[in-house]
Amino acid sequence: ADPRALAEARAHQDRLTKPRGSLGALEDVAVRLAGAAAACPPPMPEPAALAIFAADHGVHARGVTPWPQEVTVQMVANFLAGGAVANAFAAQAGASVTVVDVGVAADLPDAPGLRRHKVAYGTADLSRGPAMTREQAVAALEAGIAVARDLVAAGARCLITGDMGIANTTASAALICAFTGADPATATGRGTGVDDETHARKVEVVREALRVNDLPADVARDAAPAGGVAWSGVRQEAALRVLAAVGGLEHAAIAGFVLGGAAARVPVILDGVIAGAAALAAAALHPAAIDHCVAGHRSAEPGHAAALAHLGLRPLVDLELRLGEGTGGLLAHPLVCAAVRVMHEVATFDSAGVTEKPV
Amino acid sequence: ADPRALAEARAHQDRLTKPRGSLGALEDVAVRLAGAAAACPPPMPEPAALAIFAADHGVHARGVTPWPQEVTVQMVANFLAGGAVANAFAAQAGASVTVVDVGVAADLPDAPGLRRHKVAYGTADLSRGPAMTREQAVAALEAGIAVARDLVAAGARCLITGDMGIANTTASAALICAFTGADPATATGRGTGVDDETHARKVEVVREALRVNDLPADVARDAAPAGGVAWSGVRQEAALRVLAAVGGLEHAAIAGFVLGGAAARVPVILDGVIAGAAALAAAALHPAAIDHCVAGHRSAEPGHAAALAHLGLRPLVDLELRLGEGTGGLLAHPLVCAAVRVMHEVATFDSAGVTEKPV
Repeated sequence: ADPRALAEARAHQDRLTKPRGSLGALEDVAVRLAGAAAACPPPMPEPAALAIFAADHGVHARGVTPWPQEVTVQMVANFLAGGAVANAFAAQAGASVTVVDVGVAADLPDAPGLRRHKVAYGTADLSRGPAMTREQAVAALEAGIAVARDLVAAGARCLITGDMGIANTTASAALICAFTGADPATATGRGTGVDDETHARKVEVVREALRVNDLPADVARDAAPAGGVAWSGVRQEAALRVLAAVGGLEHAAIAGFVLGGAAARVPVILDGVIAGAAALAAAALHPAAIDHCVAGHRSAEPGHAAALAHLGLRPLVDLELRLGEGTGGLLAHPLVCAAVRVMHEVATFDSAGVTEKPV
Repeated sequence: ADPRALAEARAHQDRLTKPRGSLGALEDVAVRLAGAAAACPPPMPEPAALAIFAADHGVHARGVTPWPQEVTVQMVANFLAGGAVANAFAAQAGASVTVVDVGVAADLPDAPGLRRHKVAYGTADLSRGPAMTREQAVAALEAGIAVARDLVAAGARCLITGDMGIANTTASAALICAFTGADPATATGRGTGVDDETHARKVEVVREALRVNDLPADVARDAAPAGGVAWSGVRQEAALRVLAAVGGLEHAAIAGFVLGGAAARVPVILDGVIAGAAALAAAALHPAAIDHCVAGHRSAEPGHAAALAHLGLRPLVDLELRLGEGTGGLLAHPLVCAAVRVMHEVATFDSAGVTEKPV
C-alpha cells in the first residue's frame, strides 16, 4: 500500500463533516483502498463484476456432503439462466455475472456469460493424494488472472469472487488448516448443511488430506506469512504445493483472480469461506495482493474466521450466510461504494462552515 | 403481521435454489416484510426516501456534549447543500433526502428539500422537568406521520429514518431507560465523542431526568410491552407521557414516521440509537407498527442494543457507526432490497431442474 495515499486518506477522513471515526469500519475500508490504489480519494469501485468459478471435487466420493455432484452443473445452468441468488444480488448491485468453468466434471454447452477454462474434470480426491498436479494448479491460477484482467479491461472497477463446487467447503477447510495451522476439528464446518455423522467424517477426511499430502501445520504456516513479508521463490513453491495438494480448481482460480485484481489495482471483494481459503493462497504467493482485498462477509463456516484473522481482514456483512456463489461479496459491494463515495462527495468542516468539536 | 403471507413466504424460501436457511438473517427480513405487507413476495422496497428530522435540545445547557448547539443548524444547511455523509449514502442507495425542521432553535431559510413542521425552538431541559408538553409531543408525532404519508404518496416504497440534533443521544438514553428499564449507567453512551467527565455528567443528567419526571422503570416498562400486546388508551397515554417528558421533538417525529410508514404498509428502516429510542415510543403507542420496521444497523451507543432487544429486532449492519443522520439505515437499504429481490427472482428447485438435497 502507498503510505502517502494512506496518510492523506486518514487526514481527509478527519476533515469531513462528521465526528472523527464515526463511520467505524467503513473509514478503514476507504483508507485501505486509497493506499491500495495509491490515490486519495480512491476510484469509485463501480461497476462491479462477479466471477463465479465452478469446479468439481474428487473428495466428493468420500461422502462429505449430502448434495449430489451434478448439482454443480445444474447450478451453473441456473446462474447462466439468471435464476440463482447470486443473479438476484448481482442485479441489485448492478454487477455483471461471468461463470467460469475451471473444472466442472461434465461438458457444458455454450452459453452467453460462460467462460471456458476447464483444467480438468474435477480434482482428484485430496484425502488420497494431491488434488491437483502443480501444472493444473498453475493453469487454474492463470485462468483466474486472465478473467480478472479481461473484466477490468471491459470496464469493471471492482471484482467480486464467486464459487460453485459441491464439496468445496471440505477443500477450503484443508487449505485453511494448512495455511493457518488451525485444527481440522475447529476449521471444518457444516457447509451447506450436513448432519453430525457426515461432519465427523468430513473432519477426518480433512485430517487425512493433511497427513497424506505431508502438510504439517508449521510448514504451511511458513508459506503464508501474516502480512507484509516479501514473497520469495521458496515460499511461492511451498504455497503452490499446498494449493495443489488440498485445494480445488476454483480455489486456485480465485487465488489468481485476487492476484489479477491486485495487479490491475482494482479492489477485490472476497465472498465467504472458499474465497477466504483461496486468498490465503494468494497471500502466500504475493502478500501485497491482500491490500486490494475487502472481506465481503463472514460466513457461518468456522474456518472462515480463522482465515480472515490470518489475513487481517474484517468482514463487512455478518448475517450468517452460508450460500457461496459470491452472495456475501455482492451484499458488501454497496457498503464499499458508500465508504469510498464519502471520500469523493462529503464536505469538509471548512467548506461547509460547520463548527468543529473543540479538541 | 399476516399469518398466511408469513407462512407462504417461509415455504417459498425453502423451495428456492439454495440450501435451506443459507441466507441467514436475510431470509427472516424477507419473511417479516411479507407478513407486514400481507403479500408474498412483498413489494420491492424501492425507491427509498430518507427523512432527517432535526431539532434542538434544552438539555444541551447541561454540558452533555462538546459540540455547540448551532451545529444542528449548520448540519441542516449541509444536508440541504448535499454535503453530508447522509447525502453521499443516499446517492449510493438512490434515496431521496427530505430534511424536516421539527424543532431547530433558529429560523431556517427556505430551501428545496426542507419541510417546515417546527413545533418549538428546541425542547425544554429534560433534567429539570418535561422536555415537551403533551401537545408538542403530539404535534411532532403528527408531523412525522404527515411526512411518511406524503413521501409514500410521492412514490416511496421504503422509508428510512434520519435525525440531526446536538445532544439527542442524551434524550435517547433517557427514553431507552424509561421504556426498557435499563440503567442510565449502561444505556448512556459517548454519543459523537465525549470524554470521561462529560460521560459521567451525561449519566447523571439521564438519572435526574427520570427522577424529576417521575418515571420509575416499572411504569415505563408497562408502557412498552415487548411485542404483540394490543395497545390501549391507558398504555398510549403512558407512552405519550414518557415521550413528552424525556424525548426530543425529532424522537416524537420519528415515532410518528414509523406509525405513518406502518399505516401505509411500507417498510421503515430504522437508523441507530435515536431511531431505536423513537421506535420504543412507536411500539408503546401501537405495537404492530414494529412489524414494518427493519433495524438498519447497530450503533456503537450501548443503549441501542437494549432498545433493539426490547423491540425484538436484529440489526443488519454492525460496523461501529455512530454518526446518525440516517447513515446506518441507508447502508442497510440495499441489503433489504436484496433480501426481498430473492423472493421475486430466484428460481425454485423444480423450475430450475436442480436436484434438492435428500432430507
